[in-house]
Amino acid sequence: MRTTERAPLRYPTAGRSDRMRALAYYGSGRIRWEERPFPAVAAPTDAVVRITATTLCGTDLHILRGDVPGVEPGRVLGHEGVGVVVQTGQAVRGLKTGDSVLISCISACALCSNCRRGMPSHCESGGGWILGHRIDGTQAEYVRIPYADTSLHRIPLGAPDGDLALLSDIFPTAFECGVTCGQVKPGDVVAIVGAGPIGLACVLTAQLFSPAKLIVVDTDAHRLSASLALGADAAYLASAGDAASRIMSSTRGRGVDVAIEAVGSPETFRLCQDILAPGGALANVGVHAKPVELRLERLWSRNVRITTRWVDTTSIPMLLDAATTGRLVVGRLITHRFRLDQILDAYETFEAAAARKAIKVLLHAGERPR
Amino acid sequence: MRTTERAPLRYPTAGRSDRMRALAYYGSGRIRWEERPFPAVAAPTDAVVRITATTLCGTDLHILRGDVPGVEPGRVLGHEGVGVVVQTGQAVRGLKTGDSVLISCISACALCSNCRRGMPSHCESGGGWILGHRIDGTQAEYVRIPYADTSLHRIPLGAPDGDLALLSDIFPTAFECGVTCGQVKPGDVVAIVGAGPIGLACVLTAQLFSPAKLIVVDTDAHRLSASLALGADAAYLASAGDAASRIMSSTRGRGVDVAIEAVGSPETFRLCQDILAPGGALANVGVHAKPVELRLERLWSRNVRITTRWVDTTSIPMLLDAATTGRLVVGRLITHRFRLDQILDAYETFEAAAARKAIKVLLHAGERPR
Amino acid sequence: MRTTERAPLRYPTAGRSDRMRALAYYGSGRIRWEERPFPAVAAPTDAVVRITATTLCGTDLHILRGDVPGVEPGRVLGHEGVGVVVQTGQAVRGLKTGDSVLISCISACALCSNCRRGMPSHCESGGGWILGHRIDGTQAEYVRIPYADTSLHRIPLGAPDGDLALLSDIFPTAFECGVTCGQVKPGDVVAIVGAGPIGLACVLTAQLFSPAKLIVVDTDAHRLSASLALGADAAYLASAGDAASRIMSSTRGRGVDVAIEAVGSPETFRLCQDILAPGGALANVGVHAKPVELRLERLWSRNVRITTRWVDTTSIPMLLDAATTGRLVVGRLITHRFRLDQILDAYETFEAAAARKAIKVLLHAGERPR
Amino acid sequence: MRTTERAPLRYPTAGRSDRMRALAYYGSGRIRWEERPFPAVAAPTDAVVRITATTLCGTDLHILRGDVPGVEPGRVLGHEGVGVVVQTGQAVRGLKTGDSVLISCISACALCSNCRRGMPSHCESGGGWILGHRIDGTQAEYVRIPYADTSLHRIPLGAPDGDLALLSDIFPTAFECGVTCGQVKPGDVVAIVGAGPIGLACVLTAQLFSPAKLIVVDTDAHRLSASLALGADAAYLASAGDAASRIMSSTRGRGVDVAIEAVGSPETFRLCQDILAPGGALANVGVHAKPVELRLERLWSRNVRITTRWVDTTSIPMLLDAATTGRLVVGRLITHRFRLDQILDAYETFEAAAARKAIKVLLHAGERPR
Repeated sequence: MRTTERAPLRYPTAGRSDRMRALAYYGSGRIRWEERPFPAVAAPTDAVVRITATTLCGTDLHILRGDVPGVEPGRVLGHEGVGVVVQTGQAVRGLKTGDSVLISCISACALCSNCRRGMPSHCESGGGWILGHRIDGTQAEYVRIPYADTSLHRIPLGAPDGDLALLSDIFPTAFECGVTCGQVKPGDVVAIVGAGPIGLACVLTAQLFSPAKLIVVDTDAHRLSASLALGADAAYLASAGDAASRIMSSTRGRGVDVAIEAVGSPETFRLCQDILAPGGALANVGVHAKPVELRLERLWSRNVRITTRWVDTTSIPMLLDAATTGRLVVGRLITHRFRLDQILDAYETFEAAAARKAIKVLLHAGERPR
Repeated sequence: MRTTERAPLRYPTAGRSDRMRALAYYGSGRIRWEERPFPAVAAPTDAVVRITATTLCGTDLHILRGDVPGVEPGRVLGHEGVGVVVQTGQAVRGLKTGDSVLISCISACALCSNCRRGMPSHCESGGGWILGHRIDGTQAEYVRIPYADTSLHRIPLGAPDGDLALLSDIFPTAFECGVTCGQVKPGDVVAIVGAGPIGLACVLTAQLFSPAKLIVVDTDAHRLSASLALGADAAYLASAGDAASRIMSSTRGRGVDVAIEAVGSPETFRLCQDILAPGGALANVGVHAKPVELRLERLWSRNVRITTRWVDTTSIPMLLDAATTGRLVVGRLITHRFRLDQILDAYETFEAAAARKAIKVLLHAGERPR
Repeated sequence: MRTTERAPLRYPTAGRSDRMRALAYYGSGRIRWEERPFPAVAAPTDAVVRITATTLCGTDLHILRGDVPGVEPGRVLGHEGVGVVVQTGQAVRGLKTGDSVLISCISACALCSNCRRGMPSHCESGGGWILGHRIDGTQAEYVRIPYADTSLHRIPLGAPDGDLALLSDIFPTAFECGVTCGQVKPGDVVAIVGAGPIGLACVLTAQLFSPAKLIVVDTDAHRLSASLALGADAAYLASAGDAASRIMSSTRGRGVDVAIEAVGSPETFRLCQDILAPGGALANVGVHAKPVELRLERLWSRNVRITTRWVDTTSIPMLLDAATTGRLVVGRLITHRFRLDQILDAYETFEAAAARKAIKVLLHAGERPR
Repeated sequence: MRTTERAPLRYPTAGRSDRMRALAYYGSGRIRWEERPFPAVAAPTDAVVRITATTLCGTDLHILRGDVPGVEPGRVLGHEGVGVVVQTGQAVRGLKTGDSVLISCISACALCSNCRRGMPSHCESGGGWILGHRIDGTQAEYVRIPYADTSLHRIPLGAPDGDLALLSDIFPTAFECGVTCGQVKPGDVVAIVGAGPIGLACVLTAQLFSPAKLIVVDTDAHRLSASLALGADAAYLASAGDAASRIMSSTRGRGVDVAIEAVGSPETFRLCQDILAPGGALANVGVHAKPVELRLERLWSRNVRITTRWVDTTSIPMLLDAATTGRLVVGRLITHRFRLDQILDAYETFEAAAARKAIKVLLHAGERPR
């Protein structure tokens, strides 16, 4: 075990004294890039991280639209990022100042019964998704990370590659909630409904299990092209009823072994039900705002499995290894890069994702984007 | 491999020449106990079985109410039973005249891809649930069984015990669709919603995995008493909202690890959703006639698994061993016994199950019920 | 999260000032019950526990015979026990002074990659089996527990029942290394070779999965009787070749689905190989001092699975719940009880286990044994 | 279900009347390419197949050396091949004359309890490995296949591609006994010990699960080159102790997650034990002629899993789909091609595999090899 001492505050922005800049939310539609006090260790298990790269998530847009009630005005947004540890609490054992780290979007106390069974998304001691939600997040020059030992992942060598910020949330979400819950395996026919960033990360990570056929459905032709470029075998435009009938006929009426719902609407959940073969799995990844109709009068006898999951990020070590060794090129989803202080432009681009052909937008701190 | 020859027709009811008696359906509300020609082997893989015991299923009542459209007038009902083989087709390899057998409610061709992956409920060659549905069934003195080699199970010793007829459908359904799909394990808190015959068979078979607590919910006080007698730890009357709140408070707000839906209504499916702990499983066993509301706006983030299954009866060999060695006393669910020729009385009793305190009703052929 | 402050030293044996009594090892065959300084928190993640009950393990006898080289003279022995927390380090979050706790025989740092994948037996940060091995153990009035948050288990209500000390090692070892690794399931024929304390704990915990038949083999007729009393279906004396042939003939030449090796000798490992059915599992629990012969010239084609495991104690929460609710009566293995200060007598009894008909020997601190 | 009639004997070699040519074994070291009577359907479940391609297996060389006692003089060798159905027995339901088929090296009765649980390698009704062993095999112009319905696999379109003969045994053996039993998964470090045909098929099929690193060990530099060309990440020459130390240092002392033994000698089995990380799996694929030493004095505490398996060929449908859609190019292992009547030359080449740089040798019937 590494001995831990109180790290000196090596804040490299000394010119600006004890203030940093951060993106704060002030109610529906209002965000500001503003000065804030530096965060500091508040509990012995905390660490403070200097952000070197962060990114925007669909969830941030939901917050911006006022759809996530728990987010209070003044909250610094963001739950993804990589950076360098600048301060550690007295109880932090596995990290020290200067370590390059990947930030998990899920904070894990590691002691409660849910954390112990690998489900920190439902941490019973104040963890789970709190960054940029219940506490200030990563769209800032510095961020305080609770339960640092089990919520940060050391990046093996040298300075962190900014692209790894996609491993904070989007890749483990696609892999855990979509591919793993769907139990994709060699020989399977897999449909991914929704080709947004998460759906496209499903396209990439599903290939780790060599399915026989990977079908993608979306309403946006550009995203369908992107999915084919990332390895999908077929891509169908979702128009009324059409995608379902094309999938059914391309599987000779049998349907798919795994349907991954990566949108979060009653219509796409309905499509997933309609194309499921007997014995198939429907892995829900999308965030739903309202109930959906489950067609049990048809499905009760079809031996299907439906899963939901909030990402636990337990797959980050494997994905981090795959990404740092080049087996998984996460940066293929990044279409736009900005400096961190251009974050308002980045939000504008991300909100107009279809028009701008944006998938993931990366923000690099300190210097010009590479 | 056993050589198979055409068995002589050892029909013991020679006095009545070539006619037997059977229970036939003639449209909504109309059944008759009538004379029918003896069934005979029609395909090389068929066998004919003399029924020694059969039983009535909730599905038979559904048919009687006209709710199962595929059942044509004149159809002999019944998909459960034990008996003795009296004739085998030329391609039957593993059975011979005189063998005591348990009839599976599912006929399995054994060659199609669904049969090969252990899912004969969705047999692609005309198997699945056909007895008493697409072809004449077991509520008769004799029945023809297609794909006999893989749709009958030899009973080890002597004459078949009539109680084993409960292994044709109800016990494998409870075990496979409820207990196995729900992945009940030591330490789990399990709720079984619905204490009809299937729910009570879930109570018995869930105990094979030693859950920490077994809770049963029903609207009928008698059935709740029965569930306690069969090993449940708690039994709650289902009145508006009450069962959910009692279950939640008895689990200190956490909910149950496994909820087994054994009714088939939107309300009970709703209850199962409401009491599910994060990380829990909802195993649907009930037959549903209409869609249900799935509260994805709450469940999308709760890491739950929902399963549906039509019984495949792959568990029959294990259950048969447990029943014949006395580890599982299936007869505990039998409340009423009749002679086969009293079957109209048996239907009357089973239709008035609540008033008569009936759970399973067994019919014994040939002699007086033991 | 519970805030933690430095607990006052509520050592209740103040009359004896700052000294406690403990059982220390001084080389092969030599142990003493002697005065030692009180242990104190040394690292922020430590806790000190006042022992209320402890027990002796076969491993302690191995140490006493000089067979465990890492144990240095002066070491306080013991890795099992229950007690009350009297002091906690600053980084301890989930425990406080006064908590009743069960001590895991495995210390878990919770951060290393092995701990994170549920394998703290191979903790890479100085955990694993260290109590009574690399650091002073539990056969003492007080013990220091490293990584207390993840190496102690709170006992729900009131003062700890001393019998729960059997959950520190022997029950999780039997359950995890034997029953879980062997994947015992309903319908299986299971042979447990060796009816010492661990083998008998296998007899009890295998029943959680309702196997069809539980066969026990041992050289001691008394232990075979005990195994039958605890639920085994058959018990065979191990004489040359005899047990194997009886098991093979009782399974009609097929062999067993699961063989649990609970001795640790080449002969018993050989027996387990000989009785394994095609497709079976051999779960090794015994501690082996030398290589064994693996008959691959026969087994290579028999589709078998052989497992080894050092207990991880991840099953303690489930077993603790089963024990405190009375579903698992762990005390059934306790044949002898002593006061802690009679520990030398207890060792004498345990070393002569066969003659004394001893299985587990419990030591109660403070008062007379109940 | 397809109706089956007795197919006319469409033997296309009419000029030679009722005789075919076949490779027969006459004791150690003696094989002949000789005239034999045509095989014909003997049981109702048989089919006769005209061979279009077959191949030689290491097992055939074992037989030739007299190492497989059950093979009687006069036996036609061979258990791999593709061809066309020319005759079917009356009980054959799923195949008809003219169907292109892949022959499984395992014959499956489909009714016995081992076949029903997916383990036809241990068929209890005369199936298992019988072709070219207990009955005449596939190194002939025609072969009789027992239990044809469940021992042949229809090839979807047109005439069979001869390369698919590698799916009769070698690919399912590598995939089932090596990759599946080893539970290879994304992130794993996998060592394959032995780069013969089976080891190289492990290299190809392990990649279906995207391991982090694939290491191959062999004594032959050419085969190591081949393994790198097929996708291995590292290849080490097996000299005394060296491979083990290189693997341990390349994994920073941790060892591998999965070791696949694809040789069948005590030395290579020893190497696999030595390089296994705690928690790892050793999947034995090699055929062993004598016992091996299992170092339980070290492994008992290392949480390892050792598996053996005779191939069941249950993975053939998935592999056949992968091969016919081009995802798995099985022909990459074929180094030499001959006409079937050149089979004695083919044996000579295969016996001198190292010198001739031979991996798999394919035999094409009827025409010149493509």
